[in-house]
Amino acid sequence: MNQELIIQPIAYIHTDFKEKFGIPRQSGRVPELTGKIIFLPEYRKPEALRGITEFSHLWLIFDFSESHRKNWSPTVRPPRLGGNQRIGVFASRSPFRPNPIGLSCVKLDGIENNNLLVSGVDLLDNTPILDIKPYLPYADSYPNAIGSYGELLQNYHLEINFPEKFLAMIPEEKQKAVIACLADDPRPSYQNDPERIYSMQFSGFDIHFKVNQNQLEVINIDSLA
Amino acid sequence: MNQELIIQPIAYIHTDFKEKFGIPRQSGRVPELTGKIIFLPEYRKPEALRGITEFSHLWLIFDFSESHRKNWSPTVRPPRLGGNQRIGVFASRSPFRPNPIGLSCVKLDGIENNNLLVSGVDLLDNTPILDIKPYLPYADSYPNAIGSYGELLQNYHLEINFPEKFLAMIPEEKQKAVIACLADDPRPSYQNDPERIYSMQFSGFDIHFKVNQNQLEVINIDSLA
Repeated sequence: MNQELIIQPIAYIHTDFKEKFGIPRQSGRVPELTGKIIFLPEYRKPEALRGITEFSHLWLIFDFSESHRKNWSPTVRPPRLGGNQRIGVFASRSPFRPNPIGLSCVKLDGIENNNLLVSGVDLLDNTPILDIKPYLPYADSYPNAIGSYGELLQNYHLEINFPEKFLAMIPEEKQKAVIACLADDPRPSYQNDPERIYSMQFSGFDIHFKVNQNQLEVINIDSLA
Repeated sequence: MNQELIIQPIAYIHTDFKEKFGIPRQSGRVPELTGKIIFLPEYRKPEALRGITEFSHLWLIFDFSESHRKNWSPTVRPPRLGGNQRIGVFASRSPFRPNPIGLSCVKLDGIENNNLLVSGVDLLDNTPILDIKPYLPYADSYPNAIGSYGELLQNYHLEINFPEKFLAMIPEEKQKAVIACLADDPRPSYQNDPERIYSMQFSGFDIHFKVNQNQLEVINIDSLA
């Protein structure tokens, strides 16, 4: 009865995040965050995309390739619950699951050379994409679904103090996205040390910041180029 | 760069459909259709479900196990477009895809012996389940997403003439579901022969019917038991 399924990536997504720290905790949280889905040559066919631009949103089914583990744990500690409360893995969207498959909803912005431009991403650069499906609002949208702790902190945001001399180092078209990622509070929920310096890598920059209460202050930026 | 992923089912779902004909074309279309997700022993752990009942809906990621093909076609012909218009496979939810992975949203009705009771299913009996995730309305629900042809016929339903002597053969708790499946019009869209007799297998019964214009008439039922 047990049936193994062998999956090959069809594409890789390119995003501004080379590290996990700072990636929004769900797709759509930072609409300005863009990604480019580059199909493997075998799948880069204009026919395979015929009609896709009539949809505004897409599902990406992807491989949590940086979260593979030999063993799985039946419980996980979601960062949004402070990192010390355990819930069942099937009651979570944790990347550490029996099958490391992820699900994200992104906005389709266009097609470029038979590849896809998307936004609202929450994926690491170079994540393997296993499947792409159109979002069907009549089948996929349940605005009144009950979402448990997922709803917590939904409207929580930090205030950002990003001095102009640092912000000017970031290309203009990326500035809104980086501010929104910082406002989403990349810290683990259980950390609250106003003197601690965090570093978020984004689009070739290392952004150093501190957080005091509800205020995030960028204190330096290094270019990684 | 190419990374193969080997996936093992974590569970199998049991539903009333042993054949594809008659299965609703998306999850949620027939809320009365129930399913039972039976975990493989390795994954049947109460801890893995901790907190899951605080969510009303779940995502099922599954193997389109009856739609495996050696080759994939970049275009498919969705039944809803009359079966003769080709669209790109990534602009469709067709089971015939490079990686035969499906996505359904179901309602969580409860837990029974560490297995899950769900409804609104659109899956064949014994479909292998690869992952189960909570539905997060803030990240997953886009009621205003543009859905292209997926919206077509959304409110289309047949009127059902199900003579009482036949309906009485179906267990009472299954009657609403079978009527709703028939009302969803299981025929391929391009067929319109009022004399043609169709047969839908459902929950151990073979239900024979004809369709004239907007009227579906059940003309006989066989028990397959």
